[in-house]
Amino acid sequence: MRKIHVIGIGAGDPDQLTLQAVKALRSTDVFFILEKGEVKADLTGLRRDMLDAHVPEGSYRVVEARDPERDRSAGGAAYSPAVGDWRSARAGIYERLITEELREEQTGAFLVWGDPSLYDSTLGILEEVLERGTVAFEYDVVPGISSVSSLVARHRTGLNRVARPVQITTGRRLAEGFPEGVDDVVVMLDAHQTFRQYAQEDVDIYWGAYIGTPDEILVSGPIAEAAPRIERLRAEARERKGWIMDTYLLRRHPRG
Amino acid sequence: MRKIHVIGIGAGDPDQLTLQAVKALRSTDVFFILEKGEVKADLTGLRRDMLDAHVPEGSYRVVEARDPERDRSAGGAAYSPAVGDWRSARAGIYERLITEELREEQTGAFLVWGDPSLYDSTLGILEEVLERGTVAFEYDVVPGISSVSSLVARHRTGLNRVARPVQITTGRRLAEGFPEGVDDVVVMLDAHQTFRQYAQEDVDIYWGAYIGTPDEILVSGPIAEAAPRIERLRAEARERKGWIMDTYLLRRHPRG
Repeated sequence: MRKIHVIGIGAGDPDQLTLQAVKALRSTDVFFILEKGEVKADLTGLRRDMLDAHVPEGSYRVVEARDPERDRSAGGAAYSPAVGDWRSARAGIYERLITEELREEQTGAFLVWGDPSLYDSTLGILEEVLERGTVAFEYDVVPGISSVSSLVARHRTGLNRVARPVQITTGRRLAEGFPEGVDDVVVMLDAHQTFRQYAQEDVDIYWGAYIGTPDEILVSGPIAEAAPRIERLRAEARERKGWIMDTYLLRRHPRG
Repeated sequence: MRKIHVIGIGAGDPDQLTLQAVKALRSTDVFFILEKGEVKADLTGLRRDMLDAHVPEGSYRVVEARDPERDRSAGGAAYSPAVGDWRSARAGIYERLITEELREEQTGAFLVWGDPSLYDSTLGILEEVLERGTVAFEYDVVPGISSVSSLVARHRTGLNRVARPVQITTGRRLAEGFPEGVDDVVVMLDAHQTFRQYAQEDVDIYWGAYIGTPDEILVSGPIAEAAPRIERLRAEARERKGWIMDTYLLRRHPRG
């Protein structure tokens, strides 16, 4: 039976690999790396560095494939179907990679930035491949340090306040309003700096980009003061590197 | 200047230590271990095993202190003040440990199960010690694999569904109702199996106890079927070990 590891490799700092992840890397015959256009060079390089550092040369192969383009032009209600199409296209690629590049007794691996449990499609896609029934395999998941954990560690703050909840959501959701019933909200996948919408409220922001890498930028403080600074730093960094990956925590002061 | 590492050591599996955590362990002169009554023997043992495995003998000291008892009898509105008293008592102990057991040029560490950012008081207490102003120190935070990440990795599922939010909350909050605006809810610190309250709803549960340890128990499925099983296994395990640490994800099926 083919085996697959889905390995969380942390948020960017190679030292965020767990010992379990290193063991999984070492037991892998074939690494599948799906490239995304703009961030390709940097992130593929970081992954290769991790393999060089932890896995004996000659003990593995790397197979690169091109990630299907996702239709990001479809907004609002069309979001889910576009995601669905993209997942199916991706499932087709995974199916082919596993069938053609992995022999029966071999172990393959997908390396996932952060933690495979947060806003990552790998697990859903592997389930879709299994449902198609053309190739059989076992898989396991190695949890990783998420960009969320990494963000708050760098800011030396917690995700939640004492006995209170925290919500993790997307920029798109935040644009619809501050979530009900929580005052601590982590926002991922926000291409539009939706935090600006709350600049007049009594909210602190803890923001970070390229967390754990030499390019790391951190800003925190009352949102009215921090938002313009983040906006400027974000635009400069994005211009300089060609891509940006950022995350933030909004902490609303309880009313009254 | 004294230095302190707050090190997330993962959810129970010693291999969940990150390389960064191992480096931090090795740069530590004095480990502060606060014991909690019932879980003491098992967890203190696990921490000692980690030190034995990764840090050269003779290069460090371990200082154990007794955790102040928390007044858990105070329910409802009294919860926060009781927590406040307990934090102050704990801050007094930390202050004494750092002042008396750590020399000016030395590095101390607090080892935190899971990730220091989730329902852990260490960061808040260190800030309180700094505010008291009797001892100065620098500190940093090493993120760890939380029991939340570990739970969903073992169940091979995600925390969120595509483009949707997830909330992390407490048993006490869940008892007040299913959180607004989310269908995926992770529950921690639930001594009362509050999930039973939702046994009649269209909800799946992913439950785990002692995750990542040899005693690990996992149950998942529709809550109506899984709840009685969890209740039985939980009672048996608690009886056998004298303590239990469990976490779960509730996944509600969207209506309509």
